[in-house]
Amino acid sequence: MSSPRESSSAPASWVRGPIADLYSSYVAAAALSAAQQLGILDRLAEDGQAPFGNGGDESLSDTVVRAVHRTLHWARVVEVKDEEVVIPGALFAEAYAARGYFYWLVKGCGELFSIAPDVALAERRTGDFYHRDMRAVAVGSRLIGDEEVEPLFDRILADPPVGKVADLGCGSGQRLIRILGNHPDARGVGVDIAPAAVQLAAESVESAGLSDRITLLQGDVLELEPRLEFADVDTVTCVFMGHDFWPYDSCVQTLRRLRTAFPAARRLLICDVVRTSELPSPDTTIFTLGFEAVHALMGDYLPTLDQWQEAFRESGWKCLNVQPTTVPPNGYLFELSPVAD
Amino acid sequence: MSSPRESSSAPASWVRGPIADLYSSYVAAAALSAAQQLGILDRLAEDGQAPFGNGGDESLSDTVVRAVHRTLHWARVVEVKDEEVVIPGALFAEAYAARGYFYWLVKGCGELFSIAPDVALAERRTGDFYHRDMRAVAVGSRLIGDEEVEPLFDRILADPPVGKVADLGCGSGQRLIRILGNHPDARGVGVDIAPAAVQLAAESVESAGLSDRITLLQGDVLELEPRLEFADVDTVTCVFMGHDFWPYDSCVQTLRRLRTAFPAARRLLICDVVRTSELPSPDTTIFTLGFEAVHALMGDYLPTLDQWQEAFRESGWKCLNVQPTTVPPNGYLFELSPVAD
Repeated sequence: MSSPRESSSAPASWVRGPIADLYSSYVAAAALSAAQQLGILDRLAEDGQAPFGNGGDESLSDTVVRAVHRTLHWARVVEVKDEEVVIPGALFAEAYAARGYFYWLVKGCGELFSIAPDVALAERRTGDFYHRDMRAVAVGSRLIGDEEVEPLFDRILADPPVGKVADLGCGSGQRLIRILGNHPDARGVGVDIAPAAVQLAAESVESAGLSDRITLLQGDVLELEPRLEFADVDTVTCVFMGHDFWPYDSCVQTLRRLRTAFPAARRLLICDVVRTSELPSPDTTIFTLGFEAVHALMGDYLPTLDQWQEAFRESGWKCLNVQPTTVPPNGYLFELSPVAD
Repeated sequence: MSSPRESSSAPASWVRGPIADLYSSYVAAAALSAAQQLGILDRLAEDGQAPFGNGGDESLSDTVVRAVHRTLHWARVVEVKDEEVVIPGALFAEAYAARGYFYWLVKGCGELFSIAPDVALAERRTGDFYHRDMRAVAVGSRLIGDEEVEPLFDRILADPPVGKVADLGCGSGQRLIRILGNHPDARGVGVDIAPAAVQLAAESVESAGLSDRITLLQGDVLELEPRLEFADVDTVTCVFMGHDFWPYDSCVQTLRRLRTAFPAARRLLICDVVRTSELPSPDTTIFTLGFEAVHALMGDYLPTLDQWQEAFRESGWKCLNVQPTTVPPNGYLFELSPVAD
């Protein structure tokens, strides 16, 4: 075959069409992320319309809002009417449902994608070699989980009801607050490695009037030791952070350690997204490429479903049930109980 | 109509399909930008294949290269064969031709897109409120211009031949070096506001053995005064920076000032991309949404074609010819001559 460099690719074949759409889609994904943070999507969902520009709100750049709306018009997420207002477009409902994924991707991880070719260099992959907007990652993850994962937890935790729950990687504390709302006699303990998350969770817990029922601890979930607050925990939950347990040996060690740290735990519920093995195709789901690429860039190992099952067996946890999730795609909720020694 | 928030959008309707593709396309655009910088695209173009991973080159992260290739496989830019090698995919030739646009977008401007919702806030739009990777912007712009704009300049400058050319916003100096290569008796002067660009241009000019024929000056093109080096310039060129002349009054002033600064100039050649007025559609070209969104985010005014023509008339330049370019789309090369006073 002749080299593609030699075979001239006439501009007419690519200034419009799939490659041009790939380009515009990058801009549209960024516009969707921006519209999420700016409250434009919520406003459209609630009111059915929004101003095309800043609508007289001088705290917002009129030019930027117009550029966001023009771009979302291209993507059929909104429809610009008479250059005055925007209304939901043909794909609005789907885009709105998926907004957390875009916010996680662009605001949360966009900077890392930009410098991808730099961090691909081995010499660059030491120390703090990347930055993510962890607030946006947390907000995006919450929106991702709210749709299916959290209702699933609520159903499982209802029977048998929770006595005391420990949420590992508790983030903003919303899950604990919700669970305790559903279980008026239950108590909770949250652990997160990020001091900012613990602080935020403490404020949320206080606002919810639950300070006497929820304890918050700053610490590394991978290094938990037994302690008084853990002694009577019957239920341990861990959402969207299980891949941090890996690679394999580290995961087995952490899973064993959880048995020791929580001696009364009857169940451990882990929900996480696993790595796909097949090549991506037109059928590839939302999140998949972004989730896998980001973790490759960060140098974090992502296990497959089979690898999780092997680690459960080796670490003394019996997997009672595996519940796949539609959103996030490739997500699984593992219901585990400790194997008697 | 019912509110889109109320109308449940079943996950099955969006975990695959156009919204999922929008998401994956963001990742694919980033992968294309990374592959450009890492030399993967050039290698595929030259050799017709490349290793799936790092191919034993320990200076590159194997995991990251695989993630890049898996993503480009999704976009049909490459085809992964047996998890061992990649070959050009169905869209490789088009993507390769367009690589400069993606590099400009993602590596050059990606960080700005990520923080778009922050810089949309008026209170944030002062001082150095954004950062772009200007090296990537310059490399991307050069790749964008190499396809059609620079050959167009070469044809125009051939007749009548250049005596002395001034390149405004000369960047790395490549244009001056090429023009002087085509015109062995010509001389040149380059002006750029960025000291790093002037330094880079000086090195390139010296490497090309043209130090005695090209003068480089650090300065603001919008504030040029007459000087000895400009006195005998017959041709002034200005590529992809004309929008910096705007808004309107400033543009007219700058265009007038160029007449004074270059009293012997017979022609002024300006090539730039203009703002589109119609709403974007499935026919929207590559670059358009990204170029317009980035300048909106930066707060830089982009003129339309009509506005340029008006500014030429008012500032005493006669527009002899307007040549639209296919790449970049919405680009125009204006051939101007000074109106006799």
